[in-house]
Amino acid sequence: MDDLLKEILLINSVSGDESRISDCLINHIVKRRSSWNVSPKIFFGNEFHENILLVFGNPQTAAFAHMDTVGFTSRYENQLVPVGGPEVIPGTWLQGEDAVGAIRCRIQEQQGNVYHDFPRAIQRGTLLSFEQDIRMAAGTIEAAYLDNRLGLYALLKLCETLENGIVAFTTYEEHGGGSMPFLIRFIYENWAIKQALIADVTWITDGVHLHQGAVISLRDSFIPRKTFLNEIIRLAEESEVPYQLEVEAAGGSDGREIQMSPYPIDWCFIGIGEENPHTPSEKASFFDLDCMIKLYQYLMQNL
Amino acid sequence: MDDLLKEILLINSVSGDESRISDCLINHIVKRRSSWNVSPKIFFGNEFHENILLVFGNPQTAAFAHMDTVGFTSRYENQLVPVGGPEVIPGTWLQGEDAVGAIRCRIQEQQGNVYHDFPRAIQRGTLLSFEQDIRMAAGTIEAAYLDNRLGLYALLKLCETLENGIVAFTTYEEHGGGSMPFLIRFIYENWAIKQALIADVTWITDGVHLHQGAVISLRDSFIPRKTFLNEIIRLAEESEVPYQLEVEAAGGSDGREIQMSPYPIDWCFIGIGEENPHTPSEKASFFDLDCMIKLYQYLMQNL
Amino acid sequence: MDDLLKEILLINSVSGDESRISDCLINHIVKRRSSWNVSPKIFFGNEFHENILLVFGNPQTAAFAHMDTVGFTSRYENQLVPVGGPEVIPGTWLQGEDAVGAIRCRIQEQQGNVYHDFPRAIQRGTLLSFEQDIRMAAGTIEAAYLDNRLGLYALLKLCETLENGIVAFTTYEEHGGGSMPFLIRFIYENWAIKQALIADVTWITDGVHLHQGAVISLRDSFIPRKTFLNEIIRLAEESEVPYQLEVEAAGGSDGREIQMSPYPIDWCFIGIGEENPHTPSEKASFFDLDCMIKLYQYLMQNL
Repeated sequence: MDDLLKEILLINSVSGDESRISDCLINHIVKRRSSWNVSPKIFFGNEFHENILLVFGNPQTAAFAHMDTVGFTSRYENQLVPVGGPEVIPGTWLQGEDAVGAIRCRIQEQQGNVYHDFPRAIQRGTLLSFEQDIRMAAGTIEAAYLDNRLGLYALLKLCETLENGIVAFTTYEEHGGGSMPFLIRFIYENWAIKQALIADVTWITDGVHLHQGAVISLRDSFIPRKTFLNEIIRLAEESEVPYQLEVEAAGGSDGREIQMSPYPIDWCFIGIGEENPHTPSEKASFFDLDCMIKLYQYLMQNL
Repeated sequence: MDDLLKEILLINSVSGDESRISDCLINHIVKRRSSWNVSPKIFFGNEFHENILLVFGNPQTAAFAHMDTVGFTSRYENQLVPVGGPEVIPGTWLQGEDAVGAIRCRIQEQQGNVYHDFPRAIQRGTLLSFEQDIRMAAGTIEAAYLDNRLGLYALLKLCETLENGIVAFTTYEEHGGGSMPFLIRFIYENWAIKQALIADVTWITDGVHLHQGAVISLRDSFIPRKTFLNEIIRLAEESEVPYQLEVEAAGGSDGREIQMSPYPIDWCFIGIGEENPHTPSEKASFFDLDCMIKLYQYLMQNL
Repeated sequence: MDDLLKEILLINSVSGDESRISDCLINHIVKRRSSWNVSPKIFFGNEFHENILLVFGNPQTAAFAHMDTVGFTSRYENQLVPVGGPEVIPGTWLQGEDAVGAIRCRIQEQQGNVYHDFPRAIQRGTLLSFEQDIRMAAGTIEAAYLDNRLGLYALLKLCETLENGIVAFTTYEEHGGGSMPFLIRFIYENWAIKQALIADVTWITDGVHLHQGAVISLRDSFIPRKTFLNEIIRLAEESEVPYQLEVEAAGGSDGREIQMSPYPIDWCFIGIGEENPHTPSEKASFFDLDCMIKLYQYLMQNL
């Protein structure tokens, strides 16, 4: 496995607390950008609320990948409150840290409420997330946080060859959003971008399978514009990269906030399927990841 | 029945796929505008994401009618996913088209899931909607898509005499919205509009009846500003056009996105009641439609 | 009890109908501002949709308190539709007024629907709210509308000494919002404010108690940025004002719309706990109110 993927899989970044993953990405970007085909302009940091924006050449299209993960907030009386929609499986190991020190504890559930079993009280508001355990097998990876470390990884690979385009790493996607409206405004006001792709992870279903290519989502709880979807599919065919078409009634992505934005920006989710979403055992295929990267390379150049 | 109403009732325009109805309206507008009292400026097309904006004279108020309808997206294994909130009545005929050809099939329901009975697989993401069957009776019309073809029709009639005002035809209303934020921004930034009316269809209830006039909604899931409602009612009284006051706990319209917009724009839903909403047998009254048109004529001039 | 608090507790202001409370606050502000340390610029009135904005010196931080309350809209057949989330307790007295005259009636409930028992029909769309009954006891106040008259009161007290900062009184908070996007845009475009505090009322729970100080909320249904929360807590410690940390899974405030705004503005809810929220018997502690005022004084100066 790539060192970069391993590195970002080992960082905690529950929604609202993305500063460490943001710093890690910035370090990587600053170190590597001189080796990329085009060295992008970089926007980041506290003033940018931990979001990162990379602007290559004369951009026509922006690609977004979120940096945050699901997790839990500690409450009172050993209670835990979900951040985003983590699967609550009793016995699952969580990790975190408060002012007293490091925390390792297990999820417990009683009558629909979620608790931890840590021997001492955890400070209110402390964020906990799944303990990481990366497992490799023939062509697959199983780990926590593949959602959306795979999206981050795919876009960082895209950066190596991208000539024109914007790559954005976003916060808060798992918990109601809130950084996209700012990023969209900044991107539209400065570069009048009218096309957006969402690099994220979706679910294996009866229509989306492991090892069968990247996933182009035709809808989730929101519906992209038909004319844009037609153009995406035309280019995907042309690219000869294996892909699968997804249709879902529910779920969402950073695309939701593009749909609701006050700018005429088309959007489409293009990502990768995984089993066991929002658990410590998310499972995905390296072949699909490779397809996703290739499809982004083609689309960012040709859209 | 008016040829125009019939023409727009025969066009499919499930949310996200409004290009055909948008083209039809633009053709009508371009053909007719020289016969209107004032020839408006027109904004439309792909760059406008299929929305249409007509600007007459010096506008003070904007009227909005949505062009999209409810429907279904084809998924896998003959499954259908609703677009907006169509009534799922097994046996109902649907129509559509994919790359293979025309589609005519019926709704089936099993354990809360919706299926079609078309003999072949339908391509993923294909949009289907109710087969049209227009039925006229004493003073009423029964058909699919009255929601919101009646709103489109009323505003096109308004255009014939309108001197100052904006008429907007919008997309995506039935499925979460997304075009209104863009339109509101465009309208406010260019003409500083502070008043908006929503021309749409609502439900017959124990307070709203067929043949008793236009409907002024005092609230649905959102609540317009009291001072604006008072002014609307004062003018409606003055107009002597028959109207009914509606109060609902739920439901919504393009007004929702005006309420949530970053501009100080008042809004009110003024429309028409119908029976059997979101079915192929929506039923409305021509008298009510006439009242709605007259009320718009009066309000757009006097607000 | 302070005359000012009593005065604002006696005014009805159901969401959408905030003109009376807005007028009352403006009268107070205009009368008192010459006695304040700094006399603020004032934005208000119909063009401002009844919201009020006070700008002191060179502002770095804005504090928001909502002026509206929960209540009911009269429908047909003696039905009532909730505005916001009032507790529906049969027998509770409501008050209001329509064109026919004053209204005093009680809540009735049948099969999940809410009715009034007023002898005559109430005009459609009339707003009713809890009859006021202010009760004082050792260190506590019990009344309707403490949510959010206590927030208004705290910020008006803050105004007396505030040197730099923005104080905003907002509408529609209890019913889906809609004024915050406008206010945020106005504030950001004019003063580039990047920090916001929400002065509102929250619930007594197993982690938040009467008489134990102001409440700093670490999350509700939305989650503020961790780095901003850390800074708030650091300053609260430094201030030596008693405070309690809250963690909730649900609920919301004007903070939600700051989170979702297109501007990079940090936010945190800092308020006061009460028992029996959204009833005529909301109960709060004067000690907590005093802590809340002191914490705002410290934070607005030092953030």
